[in-house]
Amino acid sequence: MFVIGERLNGMFMDVRKGIQTKDKSIIHKVALDQVKAGANALDINVGPASDKPLETMVWLVETVQEVTDITLSIDSPKFDVMKAALEVCKNPALMNSTKGEEAKLDKYFELASKHNASIIGLCINEKGIPKTIDGRVEVAALIAAKAMEHGIDMDRLYIDPIVMPTNVAQDQAVIVLEAIKQFGLLSSPPPHIVVGLSNLGQGAKERELLTRTWIVMAILNGLDAAIMDAADEEMTKAFITAELLMGKAIYSDSYIKAYHASHDHVQK
Amino acid sequence: MFVIGERLNGMFMDVRKGIQTKDKSIIHKVALDQVKAGANALDINVGPASDKPLETMVWLVETVQEVTDITLSIDSPKFDVMKAALEVCKNPALMNSTKGEEAKLDKYFELASKHNASIIGLCINEKGIPKTIDGRVEVAALIAAKAMEHGIDMDRLYIDPIVMPTNVAQDQAVIVLEAIKQFGLLSSPPPHIVVGLSNLGQGAKERELLTRTWIVMAILNGLDAAIMDAADEEMTKAFITAELLMGKAIYSDSYIKAYHASHDHVQK
Repeated sequence: MFVIGERLNGMFMDVRKGIQTKDKSIIHKVALDQVKAGANALDINVGPASDKPLETMVWLVETVQEVTDITLSIDSPKFDVMKAALEVCKNPALMNSTKGEEAKLDKYFELASKHNASIIGLCINEKGIPKTIDGRVEVAALIAAKAMEHGIDMDRLYIDPIVMPTNVAQDQAVIVLEAIKQFGLLSSPPPHIVVGLSNLGQGAKERELLTRTWIVMAILNGLDAAIMDAADEEMTKAFITAELLMGKAIYSDSYIKAYHASHDHVQK
Repeated sequence: MFVIGERLNGMFMDVRKGIQTKDKSIIHKVALDQVKAGANALDINVGPASDKPLETMVWLVETVQEVTDITLSIDSPKFDVMKAALEVCKNPALMNSTKGEEAKLDKYFELASKHNASIIGLCINEKGIPKTIDGRVEVAALIAAKAMEHGIDMDRLYIDPIVMPTNVAQDQAVIVLEAIKQFGLLSSPPPHIVVGLSNLGQGAKERELLTRTWIVMAILNGLDAAIMDAADEEMTKAFITAELLMGKAIYSDSYIKAYHASHDHVQK
């Protein structure tokens, strides 16, 4: 599982404070905590913390790069913010994200090509989020085809089927599971598949249980990346165990400890 | 999920004591605890507690029937024990189990027909447990075909793919998951699919986590019955949540409470 740590987001109080007071030590700590917990990349999102998103994003990227070389996931809906952030990223970044709209895809994939970046393509088009399996697969196919046109390998493409809150859209949980399975047939090798985990249980009383259970089923169907709190130990145990049962790691009685040992080496 | 409560087994100390001292109150308590916890059937297994398995089985069946009308799962490898137990069952029982060997299948299915019983068919043949997906599907297909010949509806047939301990046979976890998926294609409607959950984590340090994670994936692939401790609340939450996410129950914030409320009505 490629874990994209979600904690560097201005919607969290500590990060918001770090941004507003330009306190680098707060940002450093959140970044290093996610890395130590096992994150493979760090999502960077200015959130509602600033009225200068471009400057704040650049500052965040530069601040995080002072303490880690890990892949950064530049999370902004604004193209100019994305562009400015990629220019200061020292290593190939992950662009989070583009919608599956033809005109946008060309623009975003050109930028990805220029910076050798990976990119998340959302199953959202001009009409919104398709509510069916076929609708999502159709958008994913367009994204994958466009990526190929731009010479972007499937290994650099992450399709996000968009999960929805189970308490208001229960039918979507299984529709997304089936869509994930079908994404695996789009190409060989297939693109990566990523979700923002926090949506699924939003507003639900059993939020953590719902999310932990869903991710296990999604992994069986082909999910291989998630935007989540890397320090969520119960979630981590769930996906490590699912991957172990699928034969993606070798069993030992201490397989959880072994996972953490192999993921605590990415900081500077 | 059709939960077959596993606790009425002579290998457990309390049940062993109940059998050896002919103390009906112990047997009654274990039976009612499983029923109250949500069991849909009770597995009855003499275990190593008696040198008169036939008499003990009959006594156990009669004792349990004093307090509950729930389906009984007669768990014995001995044909005469199975036969004697079915004769004293007041309601249609579940026969646990027959192997997938041609000669045995005829004998067991005749008995099932006579007593209008359901039956578990194990993916084991003369050569043992097949280690491959195809091998298991082949045995399952033989069992299903034989059942049809004997006029036994798929609704009365439970195929058990046989799970193995992950710590010594890690590859089997995913092989069994795939076999389960393929069992769903054997017929329309397909047979039920059941596993004895305790095997999977046997001997493993993270036994409960492994089993809880595996069952969620198995449910996605079509598992609809399990022999387990019905009072294992974490396991129960895992399968209720998996089934909810698959749309098999209607979401409410209190879906766990709702499940228990709807399963506490089977006792006399």
